[in-house]
Amino acid sequence: MPKILFAAPDLWDEYRDALPLALHQAGVVADLVLEADPETVDYIIYAPSAPLQDFTPYTRTKAVLSLWAGVERIVGNATLTQPLCRMVDPSLTEGMVEWVVGHTLRHHLGMDAHIVNPAHRWEQIVPPLARERPVTVLGLGELGRACAQVLAALNFAVTGWSRTPKTLAGIRCLSGEGGLRQALTGAQIVVTLLPRTTQTENTLNAETLALPARGAVVLNPGRGALIDDAALLAALDTGQIGHATLDVFRVEPLFAGHPYWQHPRVTVTPHIAADTRASSAARVIAENVRRHEAGEALLHLVDRARGY
Amino acid sequence: MPKILFAAPDLWDEYRDALPLALHQAGVVADLVLEADPETVDYIIYAPSAPLQDFTPYTRTKAVLSLWAGVERIVGNATLTQPLCRMVDPSLTEGMVEWVVGHTLRHHLGMDAHIVNPAHRWEQIVPPLARERPVTVLGLGELGRACAQVLAALNFAVTGWSRTPKTLAGIRCLSGEGGLRQALTGAQIVVTLLPRTTQTENTLNAETLALPARGAVVLNPGRGALIDDAALLAALDTGQIGHATLDVFRVEPLFAGHPYWQHPRVTVTPHIAADTRASSAARVIAENVRRHEAGEALLHLVDRARGY
Repeated sequence: MPKILFAAPDLWDEYRDALPLALHQAGVVADLVLEADPETVDYIIYAPSAPLQDFTPYTRTKAVLSLWAGVERIVGNATLTQPLCRMVDPSLTEGMVEWVVGHTLRHHLGMDAHIVNPAHRWEQIVPPLARERPVTVLGLGELGRACAQVLAALNFAVTGWSRTPKTLAGIRCLSGEGGLRQALTGAQIVVTLLPRTTQTENTLNAETLALPARGAVVLNPGRGALIDDAALLAALDTGQIGHATLDVFRVEPLFAGHPYWQHPRVTVTPHIAADTRASSAARVIAENVRRHEAGEALLHLVDRARGY
Repeated sequence: MPKILFAAPDLWDEYRDALPLALHQAGVVADLVLEADPETVDYIIYAPSAPLQDFTPYTRTKAVLSLWAGVERIVGNATLTQPLCRMVDPSLTEGMVEWVVGHTLRHHLGMDAHIVNPAHRWEQIVPPLARERPVTVLGLGELGRACAQVLAALNFAVTGWSRTPKTLAGIRCLSGEGGLRQALTGAQIVVTLLPRTTQTENTLNAETLALPARGAVVLNPGRGALIDDAALLAALDTGQIGHATLDVFRVEPLFAGHPYWQHPRVTVTPHIAADTRASSAARVIAENVRRHEAGEALLHLVDRARGY
């Protein structure tokens, strides 16, 4: 009977019912514990907030299963040599798609002028159709791909960009450095859903923020570090960027007095675009344990060289 | 060569280029005029704003082709005995879907609390997933059906209601009087897209507004008369209805000082949810002329008994 160490004590309340249920439903009989002699642990369920930082003594551990989609705070840990799996929670993708599509339509339709309209102006400015609105999604991983596809299904003129070439039906796919400039040029809405790596830091900077159409909107539900904050604020001040709706920040919660709180062209959402739901995340964890015990390949294995 | 009277002079500027082009592209050779001896007119292109009100002298007219989707201001005209066709403009449907899906996601995600957040509160209230959000669409005509289907594709738990029974994949379809009560009961977002007829007036009234979940949202991009305004304002005051986002009103533009402008739980959008675009509407008109001249059935013929 495999021993599973739940090494994210602050999340135990959320998972105490969901995990045993999911393991049972996956047909896995396991010993789920909150503490254990490291040498006896077969699987570690993990979050970056966990006190466990030295993986060296976990000599028989077959996999570290992250409860978080982002693993940038884990991959740098040199003691973690065991196979590491990211969380790819279908409910997380659903929530992300809802946030991205919702805020894309909000800006596309110009809703803010109706939500806040103290002068009670009746101005019949009919927005263009989605098919006339170029939207660029940076990052075509699990989340970026899902968002791009739903936006395209809503008729938006979607361009997707990824580091390595990809092909997606109904989406203009670009890749590489030159492709990035091309993907941003003329975009009216830019969505950043890249993983956080040393290469993706400050993808939106003074130079790249000059490429979209004047007054373009930036939506960042990805990672705070994808954007050079000073460059974005400067572009908002000149009107080159018309609005930024940001869900993630370099330091969270966003501190009181941060320029993003003050700026009239910035909307802050408090890191809610995609939240892992315990019930569905527990099913992903249980399925990976089941697979490994049955001799099948682990799902969502992190590529250490790429960092995600 | 058929003679087509363009009887909506205030719209001529929009259509003067689009109509000849669309007729040409449909292979129709016609005489498009702004004035004519009534007895010589084969087709009338019409809008309710037109000065032409007496159709009696148009003895040879084969069809009256409306530039508007709604024909409630036309069907009551007893002199109009010629076949009457509504406008079913694909771009109108697209625009409507964008408005309905956008405002549904806005309320679903609780965006307003982030768009207007003067205290800079960082409150991580994660919304439920769309699959947990019951949305009811009243009316399953061209527009209601399209909206219901896209909302269902975004995973919303969609109930559709129509006067006569309909079946739509992925949507719980109800009909008739009893079905209306069932469709509204427990709904968290209600979208009204019924045609305006004597039967649909005040569909949302004191009694029916009590049925949705407490704090439910009403979206009305259909017709102003579908809602009993006093009953809606009362339900907003008690909190039974949490918010109303209204695009259409009994009298437009909505007059200054109207309670809807003042109410903190009402968003007014200035009849922009669906706008007929001249280029695509002209193609619909041209196609109907082409069909009738070729002996084919007219599209979008109004059923006088039903009134739409």
